[in-house]
Amino acid sequence: MNDFKRKTPQGITREPFPASKKIYVSGSRPDIRVAMRAISLTQTSGAANLLVTVYDTSGPFTDPEVEIDINQGLTPLRQTWIEERGDVERLQAFTSDFSKASLKDPAKDSLRFPKINLPLKAKPGKNVSQMHYARQGIITPEMEYVAIRENQQIEEMSRLSPELAKRHRGESFGANLPDLITPEFVRQEIAAGRAVIPANINHPESEPMIIGRNFLVKINANIGNSALGSSIDEEVEKSVWAFRWGADTVMDLSTGKNIHETREWIIRNSPVPIGTVPIYQALEKAGGRPEDLSWELFRDTLIEQCEQGVDYFTIHAGVRLGFIHHSAQRLTGIVSRGGAMLAKWCLAHHEENFLYTHFEEIVALCAQYDVGLSLGDGFRPGCIADANDFCQMAELKTLGELTLKAWEKDVQVFIEGPGHVPMNLIKENMEEQLKLCHEAPFYTLGPLTTDIAPGYDHITSAIGAAQIGWYGTAMLCYVTPKEHLGLPDRQDVKEGVITYKLAAHAADLAKGHPAAQFRDNALSKARFEFRWLDQFHLSLDPERALEFHDETLPAEGAKLAHFCSMCGPKFCSMKISEDVKAYAEEKRLDEANALGEGMKEKSEEFKAKGAKLYQ
Amino acid sequence: MNDFKRKTPQGITREPFPASKKIYVSGSRPDIRVAMRAISLTQTSGAANLLVTVYDTSGPFTDPEVEIDINQGLTPLRQTWIEERGDVERLQAFTSDFSKASLKDPAKDSLRFPKINLPLKAKPGKNVSQMHYARQGIITPEMEYVAIRENQQIEEMSRLSPELAKRHRGESFGANLPDLITPEFVRQEIAAGRAVIPANINHPESEPMIIGRNFLVKINANIGNSALGSSIDEEVEKSVWAFRWGADTVMDLSTGKNIHETREWIIRNSPVPIGTVPIYQALEKAGGRPEDLSWELFRDTLIEQCEQGVDYFTIHAGVRLGFIHHSAQRLTGIVSRGGAMLAKWCLAHHEENFLYTHFEEIVALCAQYDVGLSLGDGFRPGCIADANDFCQMAELKTLGELTLKAWEKDVQVFIEGPGHVPMNLIKENMEEQLKLCHEAPFYTLGPLTTDIAPGYDHITSAIGAAQIGWYGTAMLCYVTPKEHLGLPDRQDVKEGVITYKLAAHAADLAKGHPAAQFRDNALSKARFEFRWLDQFHLSLDPERALEFHDETLPAEGAKLAHFCSMCGPKFCSMKISEDVKAYAEEKRLDEANALGEGMKEKSEEFKAKGAKLYQ
Repeated sequence: MNDFKRKTPQGITREPFPASKKIYVSGSRPDIRVAMRAISLTQTSGAANLLVTVYDTSGPFTDPEVEIDINQGLTPLRQTWIEERGDVERLQAFTSDFSKASLKDPAKDSLRFPKINLPLKAKPGKNVSQMHYARQGIITPEMEYVAIRENQQIEEMSRLSPELAKRHRGESFGANLPDLITPEFVRQEIAAGRAVIPANINHPESEPMIIGRNFLVKINANIGNSALGSSIDEEVEKSVWAFRWGADTVMDLSTGKNIHETREWIIRNSPVPIGTVPIYQALEKAGGRPEDLSWELFRDTLIEQCEQGVDYFTIHAGVRLGFIHHSAQRLTGIVSRGGAMLAKWCLAHHEENFLYTHFEEIVALCAQYDVGLSLGDGFRPGCIADANDFCQMAELKTLGELTLKAWEKDVQVFIEGPGHVPMNLIKENMEEQLKLCHEAPFYTLGPLTTDIAPGYDHITSAIGAAQIGWYGTAMLCYVTPKEHLGLPDRQDVKEGVITYKLAAHAADLAKGHPAAQFRDNALSKARFEFRWLDQFHLSLDPERALEFHDETLPAEGAKLAHFCSMCGPKFCSMKISEDVKAYAEEKRLDEANALGEGMKEKSEEFKAKGAKLYQ
Repeated sequence: MNDFKRKTPQGITREPFPASKKIYVSGSRPDIRVAMRAISLTQTSGAANLLVTVYDTSGPFTDPEVEIDINQGLTPLRQTWIEERGDVERLQAFTSDFSKASLKDPAKDSLRFPKINLPLKAKPGKNVSQMHYARQGIITPEMEYVAIRENQQIEEMSRLSPELAKRHRGESFGANLPDLITPEFVRQEIAAGRAVIPANINHPESEPMIIGRNFLVKINANIGNSALGSSIDEEVEKSVWAFRWGADTVMDLSTGKNIHETREWIIRNSPVPIGTVPIYQALEKAGGRPEDLSWELFRDTLIEQCEQGVDYFTIHAGVRLGFIHHSAQRLTGIVSRGGAMLAKWCLAHHEENFLYTHFEEIVALCAQYDVGLSLGDGFRPGCIADANDFCQMAELKTLGELTLKAWEKDVQVFIEGPGHVPMNLIKENMEEQLKLCHEAPFYTLGPLTTDIAPGYDHITSAIGAAQIGWYGTAMLCYVTPKEHLGLPDRQDVKEGVITYKLAAHAADLAKGHPAAQFRDNALSKARFEFRWLDQFHLSLDPERALEFHDETLPAEGAKLAHFCSMCGPKFCSMKISEDVKAYAEEKRLDEANALGEGMKEKSEEFKAKGAKLYQ
């Protein structure tokens, strides 16, 4: 793998995908231009294969027409949309004490993003959440953007290549997947709380995306340094790398040095929503001692991050004091980092979780910046034995209660889920979540379906993720091969993202998303027609497909060959099958005459011609 | 990865697994000694963790006490069992013309296995299949061996570590999974055709194993050269490598030079059953022209392989003439190599598939050597679009009819399955197979749940494999990362095997196999207690787990540390959770007093002690 070398002189990966062009699909106004990736295919005999566009999370980094300077950050795509609504104001100073101190700290000068904007905030009495607009019947540009984006031009592609538009209907378990997503449908889903568009008004650089059961399954990639490694430069490139390969959102889980500065660089250069777990930074501020956490410290951290532009917060408000001692019965106790910190705080103070007691204040803050709440599963099971136990289910019920509180204030919510769960207990998680959390979107980590494969947990968890995505989970948090063992590096991030991309896609196919199967059909047709390069270009990881093929057949001519090294020329079923297909078509075989005696004659003729069937 | 270097001077991997010892569990007679792997764990405070034994497919290669010379082959473990039944005779010469010619061919002298035994065959009128014995009420040593093997000492382990024996019950979809497998249960399953012990009388070196829905899910690894690469040496080591990591059976799919000689080396050194697709070799003999295949050529090939010791044959007898033209409607036609060859033969001759018309003769041969029949799915779908179509289902019905014909002669049968199938159509495959094929074991390739991830198809297929294994599939044929792209190398074989091992294990957990969860519990306990080395040693790939951990924390001391580089010391949930657990246990918290006012005092005491809880 030479993934590590593909960098521009500035250290940021900018190479476009092979045979691909960034296109911008227009909406109802000139500044709605939805980025997609169009893959050009080689000429074939039929009319098919003219256009394949795919969902593209890579942002402007893969568009060679766009100049990018990470010291400037990306163009703020949503700035006008945010400002023209007339409900925000630019503050004269940051609100958070920590932000103010940090800006003045000369030790941070060399680390600081060069161009710090003062933050936007809702005008007094205003609510700037997408849910708030949706409930008032307003279709925002963000909603229109995601509608166009979700459709992936399926109508146009189907018209041009009807052969590739055929699809299985899927089993959606009650999800509602219309043939075409309209902006009004998006609005309804947001209004009902069944979907979320994470869109902090201080992150105008983001390209809107939607998380909901009735849309494409999304994936999240975690990045972040820890006390033991990584630097700001690496973290920025890691996020660019993550969304290049398909991360729909990125969570910055940094727990080491310079969290604030790292985050600023990431947000300013991110076309995807950024999530965080604010308790991690709060713990840093508390000197690493969970018992020294406090609401005041935490609140200042929330404001700090709201004003930087974080799009959603994981909040472990469901780790209630009364549930904690039940975790002592578990084989692996509490494995959520945030959950464990809050449990320790609760026990040390013998008080109810301050995130629970101050939940209304958290909600009120989020409404002023449109930060989504990702209600964390502090009691997610950390092993097969602990799956679906009392703690987990008690917390889920609490999260459902908190969902209603957030919705009262039009704040967008999704719910985090497990964890380690054997396959037979996965569906129960989805069903309970839908019921207890009133159809708020579900966002799960895996789940991992066994405990015994450290080093391969991207796979043990992709098995669970594909299933729970099929059952209705809206977003899947990736797991890398390093899970349980160490901090993922660049290659691990890519491996995790692609693995989850394929799991999410398997779920989209199974639930019957109308735009899902087209790409499979296009790739399979290319495969059958020995258009090797088209096959590679249509795949989730064109580089690896090409590299694996070339390990045994590196010659350029092999990309035109009607076989591969797996079976060699004589044993290629696709090649023989091509003959059979041509023969059947040529002879207009049907069931009656295929079995009829008259065919004997044809068969002699076929052998006489040398049994070479595609001539 | 330095997997490639771990070889003995002879080029065969013999290193035992770390912290592991080969043990032999005795049966009812001294020569029933069932090989398992016992993993020793580090001392912990409790009485638990004394013994973890795991199913072991690696054969004598991982036992340093056993001298191995691949020029001699393995000790013929089953020789006495086979001979003492008194129903076989040693032939004076090979029956197959090809074998006879090959033995005399001086060009093969340098390639030939040095010690060729003359073959055994059933005495006239005798049937030597395990099914035949089972139906007469005979419990063979092979049946007892697999009963002991399947149990994995779960009774002893549970007695020593009751804490680790707790488990979820699973959802078996009607499978019958007794708490303990008895030899009589094995006999009944074999007699009913619900399970198969592949055990050619000419492969006495094999350690008996069972394939059936009511047992552990098994996996198969394919190896074999093609016209474009690989050598005999490499192929033998590839098979050793495959069963080292967990392959329960190995299929030799060689299609290039010296197929006969390669196979001899593999069988003589294989403790796992060997399967083949005889039509591949027949095609070589026919000069690579499917239309020149004939029953006579094929029959001679079957006899050749029966007498070498092949344990099961894939036979594509369900590719019937009348179904073939339907495949022209498909997006990717016929993707099974054997299926495509036979389709071409049928069209060229306009005759019914000779495997179908001669099926009784094939069955009669198999009964004389106890070769299992793996009824091939020549019409397996090669893309999502073609899943569960007419061809596939028509063939499956035919395979069910052929199953009954084989069972009439007490010949063991299992059924091959797809292919590419979206998740929502997987269960239908399993249900139809059980119904149409009378509960004969199902053996599937994946299925792959999307088409768009070449380079990652071990993962797209593991998602499907885990599910279909859960639903009742008895054996999963692995897919490597090179699928669709090229011939797998050594690292691909390992990646494929471990991926399928974890998928099979996920299925065992989900269906509720009584011996499955113990290892997960043991590993998770080790993880929770920061016994890093125990965690590595209990995992499916101890080498990789160690290597990944050491990438960021290579120091030996880190293996005793109560954190890892993923979160660093302060943010380790397991560490905090350990505190919580200790605290909860120390204080004997219960729900009533946890919420009571009296706890305030305790919390002060806790903080006063410095909030360090495990002292």
